[in-house]
Amino acid sequence: MGAFALHPQLAADTIEVGNLPLCKVLLMNDSQYPWLILVPQRPDIREVYDLNSSDQQHLWQEVTQVGEKLMAHHRGFKLNIGALGNMVPQLHVHVIARQTDDPAWPGPIWGVNPAEPYSEQALAGYLTELKQLFL
Amino acid sequence: MGAFALHPQLAADTIEVGNLPLCKVLLMNDSQYPWLILVPQRPDIREVYDLNSSDQQHLWQEVTQVGEKLMAHHRGFKLNIGALGNMVPQLHVHVIARQTDDPAWPGPIWGVNPAEPYSEQALAGYLTELKQLFL
Repeated sequence: MGAFALHPQLAADTIEVGNLPLCKVLLMNDSQYPWLILVPQRPDIREVYDLNSSDQQHLWQEVTQVGEKLMAHHRGFKLNIGALGNMVPQLHVHVIARQTDDPAWPGPIWGVNPAEPYSEQALAGYLTELKQLFL
Repeated sequence: MGAFALHPQLAADTIEVGNLPLCKVLLMNDSQYPWLILVPQRPDIREVYDLNSSDQQHLWQEVTQVGEKLMAHHRGFKLNIGALGNMVPQLHVHVIARQTDDPAWPGPIWGVNPAEPYSEQALAGYLTELKQLFL
């Protein structure tokens, strides 16, 4: 069992916001939705139940707290939480604040529209907001 | 705040397997996937963070344990967990054992194919299996 390393696909698709006690918090580089991804910083984890029970508890606490803060910050209509991992096997949990006028509503966001990356300026401002919110 | 009652859309789309300490376990009536839905038996809950922290912890424990057992029973390739609720506002968590040859792989299962209901005979047998697994 090696050290934790972020899966290259997650690294390519996201920008790092920072680290919580267990999870790395990533911003999906898609300006269509407030879309975060939490990755437990443990090596070789594919499923939630591969974590020990203390880590499982911390994962869900961090997911729920990040979700609540993201919803409050964006006045979201509905929180979406998803742990799929069909494409990227490293355990990661999607946390998305949905709005009734977002491009995928009311369907799930995965695989619907190609990502629309943030502009450099928008990204810098949003990252500052997110760091203040979570870290 | 009234008593807990299952949302009519969830009641229409599923068959009840039974009750865990917190959640009602439902089988989605779609024979294409081993697809369960867990609903915390608390009134007026829309988001995970609307539950008190003890219930939050129990919800995720039950989701994770049901997911692990479902995966083992079906020798699933990847567990999918999702709390969306964009269509049905009562908090419910999807737990699906995915296979690489299922009809939606590698995408999410929501909104992909119309449901293929179980035959009466298949349903009776599968419900017996699920009750033995979880209850």
